[in-house]
Parts: sequence; C-alpha cells; structure tokens
Amino acid sequence: MKTSEYLKMMREIKDFSFATIGHDGLPTARIIDVMLVEEDCLYFLTARGKEFYSQLTEQKFAALSGMNKNWQMITLRGKVKKVSQDMLGPIFEQNPSMNEVYPGDSRKILEVFCLYEGQGEFFDLSGTPIFRETFLLGKQKEHKKGFVITGECISCGICAGVCPQRCIAEGSPYAIRQKNCLHCGLCEESCPSGAVIPAGRA
Amino acid sequence: MKTSEYLKMMREIKDFSFATIGHDGLPTARIIDVMLVEEDCLYFLTARGKEFYSQLTEQKFAALSGMNKNWQMITLRGKVKKVSQDMLGPIFEQNPSMNEVYPGDSRKILEVFCLYEGQGEFFDLSGTPIFRETFLLGKQKEHKKGFVITGECISCGICAGVCPQRCIAEGSPYAIRQKNCLHCGLCEESCPSGAVIPAGRA
Repeated sequence: MKTSEYLKMMREIKDFSFATIGHDGLPTARIIDVMLVEEDCLYFLTARGKEFYSQLTEQKFAALSGMNKNWQMITLRGKVKKVSQDMLGPIFEQNPSMNEVYPGDSRKILEVFCLYEGQGEFFDLSGTPIFRETFLLGKQKEHKKGFVITGECISCGICAGVCPQRCIAEGSPYAIRQKNCLHCGLCEESCPSGAVIPAGRA
Repeated sequence: MKTSEYLKMMREIKDFSFATIGHDGLPTARIIDVMLVEEDCLYFLTARGKEFYSQLTEQKFAALSGMNKNWQMITLRGKVKKVSQDMLGPIFEQNPSMNEVYPGDSRKILEVFCLYEGQGEFFDLSGTPIFRETFLLGKQKEHKKGFVITGECISCGICAGVCPQRCIAEGSPYAIRQKNCLHCGLCEESCPSGAVIPAGRA
C-alpha cells in the first residue's frame, strides 16, 4: 500500500501513542490524536505547557504506534516540525470534540506539529502467516529490520523447520519471505553454518 | 484507584504501545500485549531476534501507553527486568492465541519481562472537566507534572477565567484542582504576577 494510504489509515485509527525522550533521558509516551493528514504530512497538536511540547520542540522527533479494531498495527517514527497556528481552524473543524476540551479562545495555547519524514510499518497479526510491510515518508532512507540468509547457507532446511510462521522457502540459499517474518530470530539461532544474519548488516 | 487496579485495567486493555530508545538514540515504539499482571508486576514478552529485545536488555526501561473503548488512557513508564522462561507456561495458558503465532517448540525463542517499578497516569478525556490521577508501582518516587499557584498570587482571577477546564478555584492564593487539569499552561502564560510555576519546581 502507498504511504498516503497508510497515513489515511492512521487518521482513521486516530488515537496513537506518541513517544519522545523524557526529562530523565528515558522514553516517555502518551496517547495523542492524529488530527489531519495530507499526502506527505501527519498533523497533531499539543499545548505549550506540556512536557510533550518542550520535548517536541527540542527533539524534533516522535515515534507513533497504534492499532485498529482488526488487530492491525501501524508504527511511524520520524522528524517533526512546528507549523503555523493557522492550522488550528481546519483541525478544530475536522475534530469538533476539541471545542469541548479547549473551548473559545483557550485554543490559542495549542501548537500544531507535522510529522513529515520517517519510516513506518504496517503489521497484521490476524492472519497466518502474519503480514508486515514497511513504508517511507518524505526523504527517509530505509532502516532494514529482521534477517536474511546469505551464501553460507548449506540448504540443510533446519531454519525452515523451526520457523514459527513457516515463512522460509527452500532453495540455495534458502530465503525468508520478509513480509511474513516475525523477526523472532529462531532461524538465526538454529542455523548450523551462521548463514542467517541481521538484514541491517547484509 | 489503587495501583493493582490500574494494572488490572491495563491487562483488560491488553494492547499497549511500548516505547524504548532505538539504535539511533531516538525513541521507537511498537504494540505489545500485556500478558499477565500480578499485584506489583506487569508481564510481557518478546523474541530474542527483535530490536525490542536488545533494547530492553540494555536499557531495562520501557514507557507504555494505551486506551480503552471509553477514551480512558493509561500510561506507565518504569524499570523492566527479564524473568524466567518458566513464566511462558502460565502466559500461553492465559493468552491461547499465542499458540498460533509461536506454535509448539518455537516459543523457546521468547523471553519474559516484568515491569516492576515506575510511575503511571490515568487520564479520562470523556467527561467535563477531564480527570487524571497518578499511580506509583514499587519504590518509585513521584515525578510531578503540571502547575501550582504560589504565594505570589494577587487573586486577580485571570487564570480562572482563561482555564479551558474551569479547574482553578478562587482563594488566596488561587488553587488548581490537579485532578482536572490539562497541564496546558494557559494559566502560567496569563498570570500577571508570575505566581504559576511548574509543579516540579515548587
């Protein structure tokens, strides 16, 4: 699926966890609404008095994760920038319940942010095998996760036998169907010839 | 509500975002199930091949956030330790769908973690005014958020007038009803005498 379609799915899910780094250097997170999406931008907001606000303005980065009613998860982590408060008008129009939380003039304490560059992942645990797909927003370069099987493979088939999702295909070398892989690492631990390595190191 | 009751609520919500720090020093997060709770411990698991696993064993910390169907959010951030794989038995019994994801012997790639010390927050946006409450797990010392009004208050009433949740009570000094406060900071910005300060600095 295209990135813009994943952004639309995120707007439908609406409630996402937004993670940043806390005052103590450790991760911190809270649930925030995805207020609006455009082709290449995901909008959200927060108030200037909140720790989340200072973390966003300093770190310019957030990691989002959420899930719909069909057990399909989406994550998106990437760069964030503050945009004009003029966006508050369209945002309050599209999210009328905001008027109950910040009635009248009090909305002026809110600032609008846009996540404009990052990497996301769709992950569907509801089927067998599971299904996953990476998507990129803006100029993001892909960070590869999971494992690949190299030319060291002796085609013994042990990895395919232990794989909980049966997502390793016979061959020379054997091959992991990346879209069905849990990234559990059982193939790597079981391989007698060290042929299974992290995808990021391949 | 007591911490143990919040832990039970987290087990009912089940799907939480778990945030850690990524390979690049920036926050990262994914949805993970709360597998089991005891009086003073929240159990979850992951596979040894995952980035989440190495992050947990190195950082020994995670920040959780989630929400139920009534728009009530819970966050909990704190210390995490790896516990015995013997916990896999009771966890798979209480979460039978795990057998589809990790059938048979493949569960041996999983490791069990327990969050045993930390600070959490319950946040209910569904009513007016909103309601929030902090809870502590284990030996955690409270980190105070939001604002308080000090003796510098001149009782002008501006803060009470601008507050979006009408949660500031008249008096000398005026006082913020902490459980109903959004932490938006509008009172701090509006106070003409600088009497409103972050609770953590009071």
